Amino acid sequence: MTAETEPFPRQHDLRSPEPIEARRVDAWWRAANYLAAGQIYLLDNPLLREPLRPEHVKSRLLGHWGTVPGITLTYAHLNRLIVQRGLRVMLVTGPGHGAAALNAAAWLEGTYSELYPDVAQDVDGLRALLRQFSFPGGVSSHASPEVPGSVHEGGELGYSLAHATGAALDDPDLLVACVIGDGEAETGPLAASWHAPAFLNPRTDGVVLPILHLNGYKIASPTVLSRLPRPELLTLLRSHGWQPIEVAGDDPEQVHQDYARALDEVVDLITEVRKTAPGSGQARWPLIVLRTPKGWTGPPEADGLPIEGHWRSHQVPLTSVRENPEHLGLLEDWLRSYRPEELFLDSGAPVEGVRSWSPRGEHRMSASPAAHGAAQRGLRLPDVRAHAVEVAEPGRGFGEATKALGEYLRETVELNSPQRNFLLFAPDEHSSNRLDAVFGATGRRWQLPVQDTDTDLAPDGRVFEVLSEHLCQGWLEGYLLTGRHGLMSSYEAFAHIVDSMVAQHAKWLHTASQIPWRRPVPSLNYLLTSHVWRQEHNGSSHQDPGFVDHVLNKRPEVVRTYFPPDANCLRSVADHCLRTAQLINVIVAGKQPALQYLSIERARAHCERGLGVWSWASSDLEGSTDVVLGCAGDVPTQEVLAAVEILLGLEPDLRVRVVNVVDLARLFSEGHHPHAISDSAFAAVFPPGVPVVFAYHGYPWLIHRMTYRRPGHDGWHVHGFHEHGTTTTPFDMCVRNDVDRYHLALAALEQVPRCADRLGHLREHLLERLTAHHDHVRETGQDLPEIREWYWGAGSSA
Amino acid sequence: MTAETEPFPRQHDLRSPEPIEARRVDAWWRAANYLAAGQIYLLDNPLLREPLRPEHVKSRLLGHWGTVPGITLTYAHLNRLIVQRGLRVMLVTGPGHGAAALNAAAWLEGTYSELYPDVAQDVDGLRALLRQFSFPGGVSSHASPEVPGSVHEGGELGYSLAHATGAALDDPDLLVACVIGDGEAETGPLAASWHAPAFLNPRTDGVVLPILHLNGYKIASPTVLSRLPRPELLTLLRSHGWQPIEVAGDDPEQVHQDYARALDEVVDLITEVRKTAPGSGQARWPLIVLRTPKGWTGPPEADGLPIEGHWRSHQVPLTSVRENPEHLGLLEDWLRSYRPEELFLDSGAPVEGVRSWSPRGEHRMSASPAAHGAAQRGLRLPDVRAHAVEVAEPGRGFGEATKALGEYLRETVELNSPQRNFLLFAPDEHSSNRLDAVFGATGRRWQLPVQDTDTDLAPDGRVFEVLSEHLCQGWLEGYLLTGRHGLMSSYEAFAHIVDSMVAQHAKWLHTASQIPWRRPVPSLNYLLTSHVWRQEHNGSSHQDPGFVDHVLNKRPEVVRTYFPPDANCLRSVADHCLRTAQLINVIVAGKQPALQYLSIERARAHCERGLGVWSWASSDLEGSTDVVLGCAGDVPTQEVLAAVEILLGLEPDLRVRVVNVVDLARLFSEGHHPHAISDSAFAAVFPPGVPVVFAYHGYPWLIHRMTYRRPGHDGWHVHGFHEHGTTTTPFDMCVRNDVDRYHLALAALEQVPRCADRLGHLREHLLERLTAHHDHVRETGQDLPEIREWYWGAGSSA
Repeated sequence: MTAETEPFPRQHDLRSPEPIEARRVDAWWRAANYLAAGQIYLLDNPLLREPLRPEHVKSRLLGHWGTVPGITLTYAHLNRLIVQRGLRVMLVTGPGHGAAALNAAAWLEGTYSELYPDVAQDVDGLRALLRQFSFPGGVSSHASPEVPGSVHEGGELGYSLAHATGAALDDPDLLVACVIGDGEAETGPLAASWHAPAFLNPRTDGVVLPILHLNGYKIASPTVLSRLPRPELLTLLRSHGWQPIEVAGDDPEQVHQDYARALDEVVDLITEVRKTAPGSGQARWPLIVLRTPKGWTGPPEADGLPIEGHWRSHQVPLTSVRENPEHLGLLEDWLRSYRPEELFLDSGAPVEGVRSWSPRGEHRMSASPAAHGAAQRGLRLPDVRAHAVEVAEPGRGFGEATKALGEYLRETVELNSPQRNFLLFAPDEHSSNRLDAVFGATGRRWQLPVQDTDTDLAPDGRVFEVLSEHLCQGWLEGYLLTGRHGLMSSYEAFAHIVDSMVAQHAKWLHTASQIPWRRPVPSLNYLLTSHVWRQEHNGSSHQDPGFVDHVLNKRPEVVRTYFPPDANCLRSVADHCLRTAQLINVIVAGKQPALQYLSIERARAHCERGLGVWSWASSDLEGSTDVVLGCAGDVPTQEVLAAVEILLGLEPDLRVRVVNVVDLARLFSEGHHPHAISDSAFAAVFPPGVPVVFAYHGYPWLIHRMTYRRPGHDGWHVHGFHEHGTTTTPFDMCVRNDVDRYHLALAALEQVPRCADRLGHLREHLLERLTAHHDHVRETGQDLPEIREWYWGAGSSA
Repeated sequence: MTAETEPFPRQHDLRSPEPIEARRVDAWWRAANYLAAGQIYLLDNPLLREPLRPEHVKSRLLGHWGTVPGITLTYAHLNRLIVQRGLRVMLVTGPGHGAAALNAAAWLEGTYSELYPDVAQDVDGLRALLRQFSFPGGVSSHASPEVPGSVHEGGELGYSLAHATGAALDDPDLLVACVIGDGEAETGPLAASWHAPAFLNPRTDGVVLPILHLNGYKIASPTVLSRLPRPELLTLLRSHGWQPIEVAGDDPEQVHQDYARALDEVVDLITEVRKTAPGSGQARWPLIVLRTPKGWTGPPEADGLPIEGHWRSHQVPLTSVRENPEHLGLLEDWLRSYRPEELFLDSGAPVEGVRSWSPRGEHRMSASPAAHGAAQRGLRLPDVRAHAVEVAEPGRGFGEATKALGEYLRETVELNSPQRNFLLFAPDEHSSNRLDAVFGATGRRWQLPVQDTDTDLAPDGRVFEVLSEHLCQGWLEGYLLTGRHGLMSSYEAFAHIVDSMVAQHAKWLHTASQIPWRRPVPSLNYLLTSHVWRQEHNGSSHQDPGFVDHVLNKRPEVVRTYFPPDANCLRSVADHCLRTAQLINVIVAGKQPALQYLSIERARAHCERGLGVWSWASSDLEGSTDVVLGCAGDVPTQEVLAAVEILLGLEPDLRVRVVNVVDLARLFSEGHHPHAISDSAFAAVFPPGVPVVFAYHGYPWLIHRMTYRRPGHDGWHVHGFHEHGTTTTPFDMCVRNDVDRYHLALAALEQVPRCADRLGHLREHLLERLTAHHDHVRETGQDLPEIREWYWGAGSSA
């Protein structure tokens, strides 16, 4: 970026290209507006070939008109650019409630009819197009997976620019136009998204073209950005690295000329951007500020109140059309103002003049291959067995799970470097989360000035770090939805920051999976680390394992959760997840040194089964189990193993079975999740009638809700996190939540009737150990040496 | 705001006040830095009266140094301002991992010792202060409720400026200084928070003074704002309505002079702000840009790598102190560089020169009454019975729940107008959610230019609308934490946007409730409406009832969830919630016309019990119940009542009991929630051995996880939302998720053995109705007339 300060952006009137043929773009715009308004209102009489009567109008009027004319206008002008310049353009529509505009455009371009043969370019198809909108069993009034050419769900606002940015990464020939509503621009995620130029590489990434559409209002009040004084708004955008170009007005002829010139200037600016050196920070990316009236070309007023140019046009401008003849008349005037007789043939098809305004084939934004996931380039994955952690004997040596994963990810980055289809995202935590091996292969993406002492920054780095979970998630979603691959790591507790985003993505995946023309979307992979049990100096604010609960409320077809107990299991699970599509994979694993249990071969087999008896840690024989100790999560697994050691030390004859669960969904009752095992398979692992003490990484009631229908659930005793969090030792966290070895051993023994007479003695002994623990921690700030060995290895001073 | 564009902010060197006494501020600063570094390292030898030996150093070094010197510097200079100008100042510390700085300041001011007598201003107290930090059972390295003078949890980043803004509202004598780290400034919520000047009233609100501390790095890489060219950064801040004043350097003497002058200028600017007319948009609020090195005054380098001024100073600058004599020497040099012998008496107390730099009593930021919740002004509430909805007979008339609540809120706004202690927040949805009666008493807060056609805007409005759930929540939290009252409404699905914020607030409330010197915080009240069952034109992105699940994962002591079935119940529940403190109250209620059941008196009694048998809707007699139909939520309640009508129409002898649950936590097993009823009270409502078909508003497994330990749980069959969402009729949503009257009636009948022989016939009949429903919706886009009557009343055309 330059240090100079131009208070005003370059004005497009500095240039004077030929005036565009406004008549043609205007015809297309009128056609799209007509179809969009028709979607809100018309049940029949789609061409208005007869006078409008109440029965032609839907009985319940639902939809959003206000944003439509700005979207259709933008669409029309982008089409000119595509045709004249041969550009590949994809459109992200932030004002997602303008789905009527996108449906209209896709229908005019023929895409809609190709993908939905019942909605052909004829009168019946037209009627179907209008009728299905906001209609039961039809399509929603916000952009959704059903909308051709869209990757952006229009329900929840805030993510359009992040999605557009993610879509543009690594696709240098693509221009991603992104309409941003001035309502959405008030959200936090969108406000942070303006910083994209600090990360976009001017040579290897596509172009993100934000089109900030200031129509002045959100649902019921003005918007902040639209009422900021004009110079303030422009400097605000410039400050982030954009070059704003303004288009404003309410005279269509003038706006058409201005918009066309503005887009020509965009192309010139892109040429400039492409010449700037990556990492120089000099690129100033084009951006359009579009000021046109909300509900433009709609009814100017009704019932004496202004509508066009006002928030009253946000949804349905005329609401009593069936009952109120005056409203019906206003609606007919409005629809006829587009002169549909000039725009559509009697057959229902658009006239040639309108049709020809659309680009052809895959150049149509509604048929964008990128938006339909066709930019897929297969991910190459390394041999998970190479550089695995050596485990000669289970539970003897130590390893660092995320560090081992870092090596695997470094190899993955290297393997996919040529095809540029794999990126890593984190909120400034790759190093903190011990994934820094990846910096052996690449750097952190960065375009701003660097200093001599900076490390691991690179203008073309494959690692994105910005202290915004929203941006990491939004960028990754945009990248995945256009067919590429990636992984996001986060502190476990702070994954909740993107709860709403992952929920929306899950809904998208589920709906999109039922749409035949959408290609599978590579999975959204999370690594949650720095988890609840290992926070050391951080207190309860860093202790929250609930993201998994949230994710498991979504459609079971699209959600998976994994708790690999050691480094090789983590590598195996990550390797599996990166090979999947259409899923949200949540992997929870610690970053601290920890005991290792399984060689890579055993790890792969165990993770593939998803759960299994660890016979090497068990003392039971078939048919003779006293109690099952189950575990899911690295720390609970370790505590269960320690509990077994305690139990067998006290009661050598005890027949304990250890079951480790990696793939949590295996526990779900049959039919409740695709990964659920059958009740008979379940019984083979958890023998009927044998009590189960289960140590779970997160909230214990999650396990109960998964298993309450399993045979023998009455005998399940789940230990987990009860929100007893504070700044303390790792083991003390377990003790506070009864997930420690002593509480687990006690709970197990209480389940074994034949030990009843010894229980008092054992309870006393274990409580004595707990007291010793409390005293030692209070005095020294450390766990007892015999505990510390489990966490840090023998002789560790930590 | 002015339309003029000054490329650079006013420079403080335009003024030339007397130089401040830098020696004194520097002594205080050195003392605070010494204590902060000491907290990270020292177990003993707190005054360094003897040479530093390994055993004086903590065995595990945890903490965050990098941000500390900027916070202590700011604290020192704000103290000068407080003393010299007599200001009331509260400090919000965004770089929350700088708790060591806040602990040090509070100790130097004497507050710490007053609140924690064991941490006195003597050698033992000093040792305790240093030792407890990041120490098991001690205090966390991030700001937490234990930190005097703080209302801001320092774990999750992004909310400091929103909290500061909320704290300043309606407290015109208060200056809320808010240190914002340049890492945090990358987050979305913080980026949106810069828009505060569009809402702050220059006369009736306090002053928010952002202090953007650019030390250049987050955990492991540079920050965007610190690397933006200086003019870009300044225009960015100016564009939002701030007047930035810069302080930069690494020479303490010069920085002290500059910081003092800058704060003097702040006071002058505040005088200017106070003179501007509310609503004129002319106020330009002061803001400080502070550029000082990360880890300033710490070790310049170690092991040949730079530390001071580098991200390596983020946490522990020297990591091997106990093992590495060179590091030990560097640490000792570092600590001695503050010359502790000049700063502390042999007794351990600060020397007079340091002590006297602190303000006195409640003027100390660490003793801020506002931060401790003492700004409380009791909320006046209207008579909930006045203007209640008339209900002569249950289930006959229609009403709109949120509209009725709007009247109650309007009265509440009016009653509390004089004491200015009640605010409403929503992301642009007060009107959409039918709460617009409040605009009879007040307007939407707005300072930017208005247009003739705008409605309900007011520079002093009690309603805050901004299209950012994060800002709504952050402002409300800041307002509540300083002792005032409020309510936030949201579309149910989008409440997930603030999942992480509510989780942090729950943790804060729980911890704070155990701290005797903190006053109770008025409850955080949510109204979730536009809920999953009534989305009409919106599709699955708007359908998510999971916020309640998330909230119920938090400590039961602080969370409550309510499902009022009608308008009077909603008024009763809201009235109750507004009277509570220390809670998070989630109220879920629809905004559409719906059947009304209870008069206000009966509603109050029912809501107070939290659940109860609706005998007027039941056909059983004591001891003769065939099946219980339970319900929680307005739509499920309606469907249960319809199911009963169907059942009794088919089987007049059936003995059905209807149980409505308002306060969901009543269902929790005994001991699992303060509102859980006893098993015997539970059995009185849900008779043992009688099957229960329960229709729940949200995910059905939530009910199972609450009740799996209740006697008779095996006989519970919960119907609820299964993520089968789309654009369809309200009733069809129920059908898709099996929560409709037909599925419920079937499920109930299946539980009644004496009806077994009639089941085939009944099943056939009900399936016929379902088929008729499907056909009718497909053909007309409407529910069957007999269904529609239930949703809209007889004769409705909708």
